[in-house]
Amino acid sequence: MTYAYQGTMRTRPGHRDEVVAILLSGTDGLRAAGCHLYAVGVSATDPDLVVVSELWESKEHHDASLELPETKAAIAAAMPLLTGEFTGTEARVEGGLGVDVLTGAAARP
Amino acid sequence: MTYAYQGTMRTRPGHRDEVVAILLSGTDGLRAAGCHLYAVGVSATDPDLVVVSELWESKEHHDASLELPETKAAIAAAMPLLTGEFTGTEARVEGGLGVDVLTGAAARP
Repeated sequence: MTYAYQGTMRTRPGHRDEVVAILLSGTDGLRAAGCHLYAVGVSATDPDLVVVSELWESKEHHDASLELPETKAAIAAAMPLLTGEFTGTEARVEGGLGVDVLTGAAARP
Repeated sequence: MTYAYQGTMRTRPGHRDEVVAILLSGTDGLRAAGCHLYAVGVSATDPDLVVVSELWESKEHHDASLELPETKAAIAAAMPLLTGEFTGTEARVEGGLGVDVLTGAAARP
């Protein structure tokens, strides 16, 4: 069952773009770990907020990815730039436009 | 610039699946309105929470879609089943895994 994670993280002032770059640097390797979507965005109104929207093959795939060396390295690089204020919501995806595009695309070689 | 919206809505007890069905019923028509992703999910731990993750061609496309007859009908059908407790976060997508799959797929005929 496709798993969704959506969250925000607050960066120390002036470090938002650096955090975005860190998050974007390692995403290619996530596909093999069962990631369908890892979209990184920024707020138009809050200069220190980073927003992530993720879809995974399952919650287990997501949780296991946190143990990948590249994920651990990205977390370690980003943590000093964050305030520690996080929000996050998990969900089991029931369907919707675009979900099949992503999950089908992920299954292609 | 790709626009992301992520949000939650709380349903009146026992009406979650009905709201999910309403939200899923009209999503095909959203593609022509500039929608790349409209994933509808539910919480594994909160029985009355619906979670949506959306990606759009732009914020303007998203905002305009709220005026579509099918969107207005879905909102009208769902509103009596909701408590009025919403959360939502908007973002400008900077990149990430899967984003090109969705935006490229949306451009195909």
